[in-house]
Amino acid sequence: MSRLFKGRSDRIGLPPGSLVHVGEKRSEAEITVIDYGGAQVQERKLKKAEEVYQYRDRPTVTWINVDGLHQIEVLEEIGKCFGLHRLVLEDILNTDHRPKVEDFGKYIYIVLKMLSYDNANNEVVSEQVSLVLGSNFVLSFQEDITSGDVFNPIRERIRTDGSQIRTMGADYLAYSLMDIVIDNYFVVLETLGERIDDIEEELVTNPASQTLQGIHNLKKEMLYLRKSVWPLREVIYSLERSESQLVTKTTAVYLRDVYDHTIQVIDTIETFRDTVSGMLDIYLSSVSNRLNSVMKVLTVIATIFMPLTFLAGVYGMNFRHMPELEWTWGYPVVLLVMFSVGISMLVYFRKKKWL
Amino acid sequence: MSRLFKGRSDRIGLPPGSLVHVGEKRSEAEITVIDYGGAQVQERKLKKAEEVYQYRDRPTVTWINVDGLHQIEVLEEIGKCFGLHRLVLEDILNTDHRPKVEDFGKYIYIVLKMLSYDNANNEVVSEQVSLVLGSNFVLSFQEDITSGDVFNPIRERIRTDGSQIRTMGADYLAYSLMDIVIDNYFVVLETLGERIDDIEEELVTNPASQTLQGIHNLKKEMLYLRKSVWPLREVIYSLERSESQLVTKTTAVYLRDVYDHTIQVIDTIETFRDTVSGMLDIYLSSVSNRLNSVMKVLTVIATIFMPLTFLAGVYGMNFRHMPELEWTWGYPVVLLVMFSVGISMLVYFRKKKWL
Amino acid sequence: MSRLFKGRSDRIGLPPGSLVHVGEKRSEAEITVIDYGGAQVQERKLKKAEEVYQYRDRPTVTWINVDGLHQIEVLEEIGKCFGLHRLVLEDILNTDHRPKVEDFGKYIYIVLKMLSYDNANNEVVSEQVSLVLGSNFVLSFQEDITSGDVFNPIRERIRTDGSQIRTMGADYLAYSLMDIVIDNYFVVLETLGERIDDIEEELVTNPASQTLQGIHNLKKEMLYLRKSVWPLREVIYSLERSESQLVTKTTAVYLRDVYDHTIQVIDTIETFRDTVSGMLDIYLSSVSNRLNSVMKVLTVIATIFMPLTFLAGVYGMNFRHMPELEWTWGYPVVLLVMFSVGISMLVYFRKKKWL
Amino acid sequence: MSRLFKGRSDRIGLPPGSLVHVGEKRSEAEITVIDYGGAQVQERKLKKAEEVYQYRDRPTVTWINVDGLHQIEVLEEIGKCFGLHRLVLEDILNTDHRPKVEDFGKYIYIVLKMLSYDNANNEVVSEQVSLVLGSNFVLSFQEDITSGDVFNPIRERIRTDGSQIRTMGADYLAYSLMDIVIDNYFVVLETLGERIDDIEEELVTNPASQTLQGIHNLKKEMLYLRKSVWPLREVIYSLERSESQLVTKTTAVYLRDVYDHTIQVIDTIETFRDTVSGMLDIYLSSVSNRLNSVMKVLTVIATIFMPLTFLAGVYGMNFRHMPELEWTWGYPVVLLVMFSVGISMLVYFRKKKWL
Amino acid sequence: MSRLFKGRSDRIGLPPGSLVHVGEKRSEAEITVIDYGGAQVQERKLKKAEEVYQYRDRPTVTWINVDGLHQIEVLEEIGKCFGLHRLVLEDILNTDHRPKVEDFGKYIYIVLKMLSYDNANNEVVSEQVSLVLGSNFVLSFQEDITSGDVFNPIRERIRTDGSQIRTMGADYLAYSLMDIVIDNYFVVLETLGERIDDIEEELVTNPASQTLQGIHNLKKEMLYLRKSVWPLREVIYSLERSESQLVTKTTAVYLRDVYDHTIQVIDTIETFRDTVSGMLDIYLSSVSNRLNSVMKVLTVIATIFMPLTFLAGVYGMNFRHMPELEWTWGYPVVLLVMFSVGISMLVYFRKKKWL
Repeated sequence: MSRLFKGRSDRIGLPPGSLVHVGEKRSEAEITVIDYGGAQVQERKLKKAEEVYQYRDRPTVTWINVDGLHQIEVLEEIGKCFGLHRLVLEDILNTDHRPKVEDFGKYIYIVLKMLSYDNANNEVVSEQVSLVLGSNFVLSFQEDITSGDVFNPIRERIRTDGSQIRTMGADYLAYSLMDIVIDNYFVVLETLGERIDDIEEELVTNPASQTLQGIHNLKKEMLYLRKSVWPLREVIYSLERSESQLVTKTTAVYLRDVYDHTIQVIDTIETFRDTVSGMLDIYLSSVSNRLNSVMKVLTVIATIFMPLTFLAGVYGMNFRHMPELEWTWGYPVVLLVMFSVGISMLVYFRKKKWL
Repeated sequence: MSRLFKGRSDRIGLPPGSLVHVGEKRSEAEITVIDYGGAQVQERKLKKAEEVYQYRDRPTVTWINVDGLHQIEVLEEIGKCFGLHRLVLEDILNTDHRPKVEDFGKYIYIVLKMLSYDNANNEVVSEQVSLVLGSNFVLSFQEDITSGDVFNPIRERIRTDGSQIRTMGADYLAYSLMDIVIDNYFVVLETLGERIDDIEEELVTNPASQTLQGIHNLKKEMLYLRKSVWPLREVIYSLERSESQLVTKTTAVYLRDVYDHTIQVIDTIETFRDTVSGMLDIYLSSVSNRLNSVMKVLTVIATIFMPLTFLAGVYGMNFRHMPELEWTWGYPVVLLVMFSVGISMLVYFRKKKWL
Repeated sequence: MSRLFKGRSDRIGLPPGSLVHVGEKRSEAEITVIDYGGAQVQERKLKKAEEVYQYRDRPTVTWINVDGLHQIEVLEEIGKCFGLHRLVLEDILNTDHRPKVEDFGKYIYIVLKMLSYDNANNEVVSEQVSLVLGSNFVLSFQEDITSGDVFNPIRERIRTDGSQIRTMGADYLAYSLMDIVIDNYFVVLETLGERIDDIEEELVTNPASQTLQGIHNLKKEMLYLRKSVWPLREVIYSLERSESQLVTKTTAVYLRDVYDHTIQVIDTIETFRDTVSGMLDIYLSSVSNRLNSVMKVLTVIATIFMPLTFLAGVYGMNFRHMPELEWTWGYPVVLLVMFSVGISMLVYFRKKKWL
Repeated sequence: MSRLFKGRSDRIGLPPGSLVHVGEKRSEAEITVIDYGGAQVQERKLKKAEEVYQYRDRPTVTWINVDGLHQIEVLEEIGKCFGLHRLVLEDILNTDHRPKVEDFGKYIYIVLKMLSYDNANNEVVSEQVSLVLGSNFVLSFQEDITSGDVFNPIRERIRTDGSQIRTMGADYLAYSLMDIVIDNYFVVLETLGERIDDIEEELVTNPASQTLQGIHNLKKEMLYLRKSVWPLREVIYSLERSESQLVTKTTAVYLRDVYDHTIQVIDTIETFRDTVSGMLDIYLSSVSNRLNSVMKVLTVIATIFMPLTFLAGVYGMNFRHMPELEWTWGYPVVLLVMFSVGISMLVYFRKKKWL
Repeated sequence: MSRLFKGRSDRIGLPPGSLVHVGEKRSEAEITVIDYGGAQVQERKLKKAEEVYQYRDRPTVTWINVDGLHQIEVLEEIGKCFGLHRLVLEDILNTDHRPKVEDFGKYIYIVLKMLSYDNANNEVVSEQVSLVLGSNFVLSFQEDITSGDVFNPIRERIRTDGSQIRTMGADYLAYSLMDIVIDNYFVVLETLGERIDDIEEELVTNPASQTLQGIHNLKKEMLYLRKSVWPLREVIYSLERSESQLVTKTTAVYLRDVYDHTIQVIDTIETFRDTVSGMLDIYLSSVSNRLNSVMKVLTVIATIFMPLTFLAGVYGMNFRHMPELEWTWGYPVVLLVMFSVGISMLVYFRKKKWL
């Protein structure tokens, strides 16, 4: 449940813009800067947050990436440097936000969810990625260093001379970051798709109690995914249609492409949800079916042996005057009767398709 | 049920604006006034409602808080002083309203629900909070004194010299009050989240009849929560987008933040609802599963002992001519036959995975 | 079912505006007129429909109420006097309409449903109320005389000197009539709420076959209520927002109040519906649970006695050579074995929590 | 299923506007013309399609009704005469269209579904009616001659001197035709309402396997009805709001009336659907209930007789030393014990309310 | 599952516009060109992609069809020739797109799904068809050559002198291609309709475990179909309403016709879905019903033979003093008692309608 809802109760009563980190605390923050434009690329790690001031007013595109959010003073410095609203800083720290976009005029603030599949716990894990797009800079904030390499392909492309990204502005960089985040969703979907296949296979061959648990867990993953992805649709849409001067027409075309991918992700999630729902119906039906077959076995056995046992009981009575008992052929005749009763029962059940 | 619907039947036929208190009657009303602006803060409790007139036309921000609504004359006096429409007074008293916002030009009337979790009865309790936002005043009305301390953090912030709230207008005060009300929802959600976890745990380990009752109660809590929170979304949204001059652009940014929180609350409620629905399915399936296993036990027992009992019955018959009975090895042979029938049955059921 | 759908098949092929009364035929129509304005009130019963002409062009507000719709000539006379469209007359007579509002320029035609709870048949009963709002008159048409007293509180208020209603126009009168009709919904909701409570109580203590029937009936009542109330929302909304000159700004504020009540009614109905749906799930689960407990009893009994009976059967066999039978302690030993088998079974089932 | 979907596969690859009749082929086409205006009415049957040309440019209103669509050449002639688009002709022939309206400027093309209840097969049957409304003509196309008399009341009204229809234009005639088609829906709804009542009665008294089949069939009828009626709402709505000069303001008021009827039909269908869904729940519950009662009978019988049979088995054992067997009162005492065990079981089950 | 979701994980991190073919690799690409206008038609197969340049600026309509997408260089050449955006080329290759339309000003890019029914695997198969509509050319891209003949009827029409298509522009050609793709949906729907009929038949006569599987599979086909068809509605709609100069008014009328067909397809899918859902309910009910009847057989047998066996057991006891045993008529009397007990049980069950 903690995955479905991270509490905010410790923040109650604080004035707005109070910087409290709501995610889990991990290792130290890491600030990397890539500054590029045309032929030139400069890449370095900052040791102090104060160093960001030198990148503020450059004509080139500056990408500042912060891994790890628990050092609030780092965030405050960056915020001061680029003139971010305190509520934006608060939102960056509060890692339980749903995807959203907010246009503050001089910059656009974007919240995304980075998804990955935790194989150990068999669950989808999300990490908040915040982007701030300015006229000539992009700030990106990630919760955790460990997954920091998600943006590596972008870095690689920037380093490559003559790549398209080098010729475009900050908005194209922001688009590239969003694109790679959303592309990663497909990996998660593939893993989920395989789990669905596995459980479906199990359903047909040997539905067990764990199958039910598996379906329930899948359902919860879907809920979790939906919550992260649905609002994204609107986010990308409003970015694409944005009247902000920070997003150029050229980049808008690319955003439309990201929008298509988002729709595709949502479509797949919905299809998965429907499939998982259908699996529950199948499970319930197969449980009923098995109950049916168990009951048939019981009924067949009881229906055959109850009359026979009764017959044996009759000739086990101790009445003095039971002429059949004295007959020489009494015993074989009774056995024959029992045998034919049993056989006819079997024939009857076969006809009823119970056997 | 009384929680789902407080009756209004005693009001039928009264002219509109008739002041009838619909909540439960409790202790005496308490009026506290905080008047602040820049460096100066004045705080006092009023003994008579008439004293409010002196606060009407001050340039500073005046916050008048009324705890307890059953003294209708107090409300009438305040209403007269600040020129409130009779329908507003009627709505303040009728504590079964859903959240709403109404713009009367000179002031904005806002109805909120303050939620808390009653641990004694294991249910969510709501209390109506009415706000009236004027150009230089905020009136707040609470049903009950006991929970009056919800606003204490705000009071504390106002008392603090140099706090942001001291530099802002009445609209920021109204925002702060709304913010703290909605922040409290997260506490309720956390408690509900824990109950869901508990019941889910129970479902897996030992589903009982009370589990079902627990799920049903959770569902009802969700219904109750939804009813209180859903309309809030629209309330905050229309406040943020309001064209009223009472809400400044600066505050609108903060309202957008509250809006995000509201969306987060709604999202969580919906996720909880879906989870609880899924739990019902799991419960039903596990009941079916247990029925299945009970039936298997019965069938196994019956299938093993019925043929054996029949066999014993056959040799308990009193026919004169039953050659087997005379054989020296008759008894051990029959025992052996019985034993092997029983064993082969067991093997069969093991193969069918019933054991 | 007749409550869900009153047929219109007898009207097929008639030209539009053909006046056919579709409700049940009851006692004679009764026309009462209240004419008021400022200090003066005049109240009388008309004997002939023709008398209405004298009220047509008065500067005061005239309220003409007709109880009973089967005298078509009365309706025609009033229609001619106030210039009503034939389709309006047809709609007044056809009492199976859903709530609606139609603006004919010179007058506004409003259809409402008056609801009451019929304790004898345990069902919600609806009666159509048609209002025609002109610049200085309100016509109200009720199906039946018996419930005519619903409007009595309004009459009382008009008769009271100095009441607000005396100072307002015809639109305020129409509002008052709508308000009292909708206020009555709360009485019906209270009764339904109590029935829901009763059935919920029953569900927990002793769910029976009638409980199911009760739930089914409640569901049907909800369907019926919804059908009557949902369209009302739009009716009141479009009246409030109406650009017609017949509805003044002052009255629009009051209509917003009625709108809130309507929303409250709809909210409550939806909550009731969800609660009733949940009850069905509970019922089904409790039926399954009881089946489970029945089967456990059967299984316990069978599992204990089948092996014992088999054992007794073995020693009831008539083999000549059964050494145990000859032993002095054979019988007590067998009894002891039986006893210990039975006890160990009981222990086993207790451990499995079946007992 | 064929009722849910009439195939179009034989049309694939044909150029648009290819005239292929998709309905079933029946008897010969019949063209009737009624030309009226003011005092004059002229009515005749055409033998050749070419004769329609004389009616093209008359100042009076001309209604041409075609029964039977399989004579494509008739359709082509009429289409050429009144300047219909080839796609309209194609649509008239393709009788599997859903209701729609299309404004071609000079004429409006309307597709409706005529519904009737086929008592033989217990199903709702639909027939496509196409209307073409021009400035001074109305063309109506019906699939089948047999149901051609549906429009007879309209013909009767036209023939009547001084009837309203005689004084109105072609749009009023089109409205009248639509009105009578929709009025016929109420007859179908009544029949369905009666079937629902019957099945509900059956559910309470004696739910059988056919009841389930009946519910399933009803559901399918509802699906079929919905498909035919839902789009109608939009059709009438857009006609009423149409800015086409072919629909006068006067007629628009009448169309609003038809719109109300359509809403009423849709409301009723939705209510029926909900009722039928509820019936399935009831059915399932009652099946579970009956299973419960069957199992109770079994359990009671088994629980009473198993211990007794065991007791009898014990005293049927052949041990040499069984002192009870020798007692004079042994037999009566055992009978007494058996009797009291049986009675106490019965008392126990009565207390548990199983009997 | 692979049909529900084709992975994209291999594309992660690539810059946008990277051409990677996501479909399955098959035979070689085939480029056919048809160039027509008025009386003249020219048709040929291109050997090299470079040859397309000669068709770029002709006044006639040029239709270039590419079968097979794995030769990326072919695509690049065509893209360069007609000035297609790199994202369009990427989308053509990525065959897991949902239907969409994008207006690039100089050309419109349309993605469709070609559906066919794979009888071998009993599933619906989809193939992506991409269309690019320019002012005087249409490019069509198909995944696979094998189904290339779908467009043959169009080719045939173009070859026919005097056909309508020869007189119209490129937009009409694009419409024709879309029309034939959508017409093919009806064939798939017919096959599915037949499968639904088959399963429904099975449900009534002999519901088995495979029936459930069949229903589940049908449900999945429906999900798949929906995913392919729903977005199409919007595609056609926005094309019809498009303000692009590439789509003429004349063709828009034809697009409205295609739109109607799409609605019809969607309607049918929804009806199928509802029908299939209903079938699952029927299946579950019939499983319950059969359980009921199995249990009745068991209960009847047990209820008849348990008392009888008990009776036989009583007279099999070995008490010395059992007077009945000595009676001459003891045995026949007991048999008679047993017989009448059995008969009365049977009568009882018949009365209860269990037999």
